[in-house]
Amino acid sequence: MSERLEIRVELGPRTYPIVVGGGVLAELGPRLAALGFRGRCGVVTNDRVAALWGEPALASLRAEGFDPLVVTLPDGEAHKTVSSLEVVWDAMLAAGVERATPLVGLGGGVVGDIAGFAAATLLRGLPLVQVPTTLLAQVDSAIGGKTGVNHPAGKNLLGAFHQPRFVLCDVDLLGTLPRRELLAGLAEVVKYGVIGEPALFADLEARLGALLALERAPLVAAVAASARHKAGVVSRDEHETTGERATLNFGHTVGHAVEQLTGYERFLHGEAVAIGMVAAARVSRALGRCGDEPVGRVRGLLERAGLPVETPPELTRDALARAMRADKKSAGGCIRFVAMQDVGRVELVELTSTEIANHL
Amino acid sequence: MSERLEIRVELGPRTYPIVVGGGVLAELGPRLAALGFRGRCGVVTNDRVAALWGEPALASLRAEGFDPLVVTLPDGEAHKTVSSLEVVWDAMLAAGVERATPLVGLGGGVVGDIAGFAAATLLRGLPLVQVPTTLLAQVDSAIGGKTGVNHPAGKNLLGAFHQPRFVLCDVDLLGTLPRRELLAGLAEVVKYGVIGEPALFADLEARLGALLALERAPLVAAVAASARHKAGVVSRDEHETTGERATLNFGHTVGHAVEQLTGYERFLHGEAVAIGMVAAARVSRALGRCGDEPVGRVRGLLERAGLPVETPPELTRDALARAMRADKKSAGGCIRFVAMQDVGRVELVELTSTEIANHL
Repeated sequence: MSERLEIRVELGPRTYPIVVGGGVLAELGPRLAALGFRGRCGVVTNDRVAALWGEPALASLRAEGFDPLVVTLPDGEAHKTVSSLEVVWDAMLAAGVERATPLVGLGGGVVGDIAGFAAATLLRGLPLVQVPTTLLAQVDSAIGGKTGVNHPAGKNLLGAFHQPRFVLCDVDLLGTLPRRELLAGLAEVVKYGVIGEPALFADLEARLGALLALERAPLVAAVAASARHKAGVVSRDEHETTGERATLNFGHTVGHAVEQLTGYERFLHGEAVAIGMVAAARVSRALGRCGDEPVGRVRGLLERAGLPVETPPELTRDALARAMRADKKSAGGCIRFVAMQDVGRVELVELTSTEIANHL
Repeated sequence: MSERLEIRVELGPRTYPIVVGGGVLAELGPRLAALGFRGRCGVVTNDRVAALWGEPALASLRAEGFDPLVVTLPDGEAHKTVSSLEVVWDAMLAAGVERATPLVGLGGGVVGDIAGFAAATLLRGLPLVQVPTTLLAQVDSAIGGKTGVNHPAGKNLLGAFHQPRFVLCDVDLLGTLPRRELLAGLAEVVKYGVIGEPALFADLEARLGALLALERAPLVAAVAASARHKAGVVSRDEHETTGERATLNFGHTVGHAVEQLTGYERFLHGEAVAIGMVAAARVSRALGRCGDEPVGRVRGLLERAGLPVETPPELTRDALARAMRADKKSAGGCIRFVAMQDVGRVELVELTSTEIANHL
């Protein structure tokens, strides 16, 4: 397996590459220059990432003659706010950005979403580049053009679709990621395997140890296969209108309920999704959609990775049902539940939250 | 001439109609319903417009079963700010909007730009409807999807492209517009005549009195011809990338300089554009691009309408040249100046600000 792969997100004239590999952060400056940009550029990051990866990113930009303006936000979901967006707006406008001034998001999902939203709204749209530094961002949030910030009324309620010009997924950056965050990101990789990438799932089963030891080859393979799956969905359903993106919610119905009922503090998103995937697998089996074997494989792989797989016993079925019903994906009392048919194959089933909870 | 005309802004799957006529405000509710919307909708307006036209707009919505949430902003360009945007965001999110909740902008350019930007960024994009209540908004800002707010660093620096689902230009609404604002809007209508609609220009010359007496037929003809021209430009250059939209800046190079040098207080935008168009006509003649006759027609029509046609004598050529140089449309010292060849025909010429000022 190559240690550098390139995936194209096919969107007509806005088609863009996702570059996956070890050391590809060094391509930041050269790729921006190759697109014809020069001079001023913006870099949105957070304090933790800046300390770890700010220098090589800026060195790559400066080597190509760029003059980077760095906007460093505090780390964490709590800062995914309109206030942070305004910090980026103000800094970029004070620097006199023009329509051809690119903006780079260097960080995890929070940084990428804020940088993307700022790029979408500065001068009615600046060129955007995503350099995701977490596994979750590399396989999910940095791909697809969804940007936004939270609002007191809920998560991601403000935002825009704004596609990047390219995405650099440097797996070497995952070496500085806290173990727990790496595993949480891995849950989303497992999800891609279940919903449509059986070879990826099998590869994870075969090389989990090497991947968790951060060997480049299995990491590149896992990130690239995940990114390729998401890129395909995005190409066919850019603005979430056809419903195809719905399968990406496998494990998220119960996962969101668990996150919500535990106050978004006990579990990382990926951990809740791991719990939700095992729950979804069980519901699928109870509905007769699949047999025991795929349920065992999903649970087994997540357990081996050290991810949680059981809903906390103090969360009652009633509470879970209520939380699922309140979730925004519930329309008219019915939930479009992503059921597993086998590892690599899912289907959408209309269920009530009670039906789901009763099969947990 | 019919008293109701419909123009299509051709943008593939996002093609939308502009309906121009007397009394078409009553179509607001029925047209939204015909698009499949129902229940909650948002209406962004300002206090002045709400007092004049809020009731018929809401009546049209309620008659179709809509439950309108009205957000009333204070009137005026001073309120075209991030703070006003946040007022709309907060009100809409507090009301529990969904992705299929339409947002209506009922007002002039400021209201339309804020409503459009809010619609672009709520839940990554709500359906938008524009009901422009000023002549300027009916022929210009409500068409084309440019939305945004001002920032201390400059006008319209934050925003997005977000096309409406339809635009209702009810010329009866112009009856409550202050005379001075009507005339300022007329300057932009004259501009369309000069840059590509010679029949519109001739019609204005023939029926100026009837139009200024607010007779429906000449108003509908003028608004529709203007909207048709702008719609064509937008269809061919939605995101201002090909440069075709540049011809829409006829009269704006000097006009912006005059506005800026008089602190945006002495002249309305359209008044400054009237001055700028006469200046541009003179520069065009001095450059040998056109003869005396079209210059006389442009100046004559604007004068008959009661619009200003001379740069204030206290503004020196040096000051005007400096202001043009500082304008954002100047790239690398050169200005893409829109020169007139004849009434109905313009061309782009690269000039320095000094060359322009010397020919004023």
